[in-house]
Amino acid sequence: MSVYDESLKLHEQYHGKLRVESKVPCADAADLSLAYTPGVAQPCLEIAKDPENSYVYTGRANTVAVVTDGTAVLGLGDIGPEAALPVMEGKALLMKRFANLDAWPICLDTKDPDEIVAICKAIAPGIGAINLEDISAPRCVEIERRLINELNIPVFHDDQHGTAIVVLAALINALKLRHAEAKDMKVVISGCGAAGSSIIRHLYNYGFRKIYAFDKDGILTRDEADSYNPIMRELLNYVNPDNQHYANIGEALKGADIFVGVSRPKVVTKEMIAGMNEKNIVFPMANPEPEITYAEAKEAGAWIIGTGRSDFPNQVNNILAFPGLFRGALDAKATKITESMKIACSEAIASLIDEKDLKEDYIIVSAFDERVVPAVAKAVADCAQREGTVRK
Amino acid sequence: MSVYDESLKLHEQYHGKLRVESKVPCADAADLSLAYTPGVAQPCLEIAKDPENSYVYTGRANTVAVVTDGTAVLGLGDIGPEAALPVMEGKALLMKRFANLDAWPICLDTKDPDEIVAICKAIAPGIGAINLEDISAPRCVEIERRLINELNIPVFHDDQHGTAIVVLAALINALKLRHAEAKDMKVVISGCGAAGSSIIRHLYNYGFRKIYAFDKDGILTRDEADSYNPIMRELLNYVNPDNQHYANIGEALKGADIFVGVSRPKVVTKEMIAGMNEKNIVFPMANPEPEITYAEAKEAGAWIIGTGRSDFPNQVNNILAFPGLFRGALDAKATKITESMKIACSEAIASLIDEKDLKEDYIIVSAFDERVVPAVAKAVADCAQREGTVRK
Repeated sequence: MSVYDESLKLHEQYHGKLRVESKVPCADAADLSLAYTPGVAQPCLEIAKDPENSYVYTGRANTVAVVTDGTAVLGLGDIGPEAALPVMEGKALLMKRFANLDAWPICLDTKDPDEIVAICKAIAPGIGAINLEDISAPRCVEIERRLINELNIPVFHDDQHGTAIVVLAALINALKLRHAEAKDMKVVISGCGAAGSSIIRHLYNYGFRKIYAFDKDGILTRDEADSYNPIMRELLNYVNPDNQHYANIGEALKGADIFVGVSRPKVVTKEMIAGMNEKNIVFPMANPEPEITYAEAKEAGAWIIGTGRSDFPNQVNNILAFPGLFRGALDAKATKITESMKIACSEAIASLIDEKDLKEDYIIVSAFDERVVPAVAKAVADCAQREGTVRK
Repeated sequence: MSVYDESLKLHEQYHGKLRVESKVPCADAADLSLAYTPGVAQPCLEIAKDPENSYVYTGRANTVAVVTDGTAVLGLGDIGPEAALPVMEGKALLMKRFANLDAWPICLDTKDPDEIVAICKAIAPGIGAINLEDISAPRCVEIERRLINELNIPVFHDDQHGTAIVVLAALINALKLRHAEAKDMKVVISGCGAAGSSIIRHLYNYGFRKIYAFDKDGILTRDEADSYNPIMRELLNYVNPDNQHYANIGEALKGADIFVGVSRPKVVTKEMIAGMNEKNIVFPMANPEPEITYAEAKEAGAWIIGTGRSDFPNQVNNILAFPGLFRGALDAKATKITESMKIACSEAIASLIDEKDLKEDYIIVSAFDERVVPAVAKAVADCAQREGTVRK
């Protein structure tokens, strides 16, 4: 049976993947007089005095809402909020599995950014953090930014930043192996959607300065600024420093050191890889079919290869980032996820491999490495404290 | 230690009362390839084909959202959405404890009925049913009615109808003991808020015809219709058939058979009870302090007394209604909760005591009687089938 048939069977058998349980005794009337009326009036009154007490007397400090509008689900696109639910349940399950968070899906029957922002703001009093999920670009960028500005609980869109954080973690280790500096590396990125645009910002914020980005219409250049949406236009601050007009990705890859693909199948050929510098680093991660297969990249002489898949070395897996990120943000009472926290995440993930153990096919740890979540959580919490982006 | 102090300690110790757990294996990468990517794409695609499949491949069919705006929490009033959370967690816990439902709190930072309706409609794709909770009257009536009309999942405001259902259940048994008919009984109701207005409608729908209702300004009469809000005005269809102008509750109770109080402490005296007919039925249920105490009502010669408290006989406890109601509605694929289903609930709860076992101090079963939820669920499901208010 295929993994798809087996998954369908599993979902039918269990009717979804999440259940709610009581953390407190509730056997008899005495138990209920504490968990519910009349006793429950007391924690209510304490929170009414100071809403901060909601983090003490309720589950809020451990709660994440997984919010979607179902417009960009996996590689399936706009399949609607009902059809997105299995993924949201899965995401919530990963939050529990990896970081012991209590996450719950919220699938929205609206695609209007104003309405999505208004709903997220309205539900905030009962939750500790919001994970935006599978919302299509460029709306997702606007929605997340507005929520970060307008709410004082952490908001994070994993599809944008999860991959970016782990890509940078892998690149940090790849550069250690190559004894190279970020600022000297010529980087070519294919894909300027949710993940691509975040990767560009994240690499720039870390120190990469020679970034060239392609969307389906070609290279991003200042000359085309008027035809871009606001998010793409903003990316011009981070890419194409010498205003190149490469005709295609192959042209750009000549003399490049790093390729990161979050775009479409088969846009990179063996010849293109062969045109890159020595000790090149190639992350073709389009899902489910990559920009170039692992085997072809290898044959073309790629030095370090990372993929989105668990059946090849160096899996760039966003499970490495978001559970520890939310854990750390909630533990630190963070009011938002900042750029510095995301950089701290990447560095924490990278640091889990001793420099002496680094190898071309071992630049990133497994998602099941038990050190990941504590390390990421600590890095995020330390960063929040340092920056002071925390509740009093 | 008081029940309040003990409850506060419990809430601090456990940090709230709910946790989320995985229903499926998620130990290793193989498990996650079924629960999450890539396998999860298959249930997503099946639901995209037909949203009805969301009830098969996700937890939707067992999921209830407990939605509040924090405006009428317990007897505490408008304490805000954060402070309402302990009650919402408690309600979700009761759903689990009594009916194995997976319920999750949603505390809204808005009091605007339009916004509350819009949010409930927006979140509907991911949930099986909505329990509205602790929303102040008369907004709660409008919000619930609009949602019942505009959504095809069950929506139920327990503060309105929960008490009404159990009051009727108790009255059905009290009338059996008295060998009396509903239509012949003179009923005086104190309180026309969320619970009171639903009790009036519910008793009328069952067959009571001599209902007199008081709010804080006095008896409801057609002469004052212009000064009422729309919900109060509608109640004029159900009350005061002979257009009485009783000066106060005491006047109305002269020759009355039934008193139901969901209003304020101490509005009924022993003299007033003494003025009622023989074999009178008295339910003073204001919370936490009743319209007249159990002891005073007893001394004044009340025949059957019901209260909202677990430390006296005949507790009118809404836990008897809502868990089984939601269980039955979800099991039957009901698209709404109808008036007939609520009547069926009352009859099912009443039927759990054999006529030969009925006594003045035993007209209603305990919430911990294990027969309650199955009986209520079956009655609701049967009613939904009979009415055809179910998904195809």
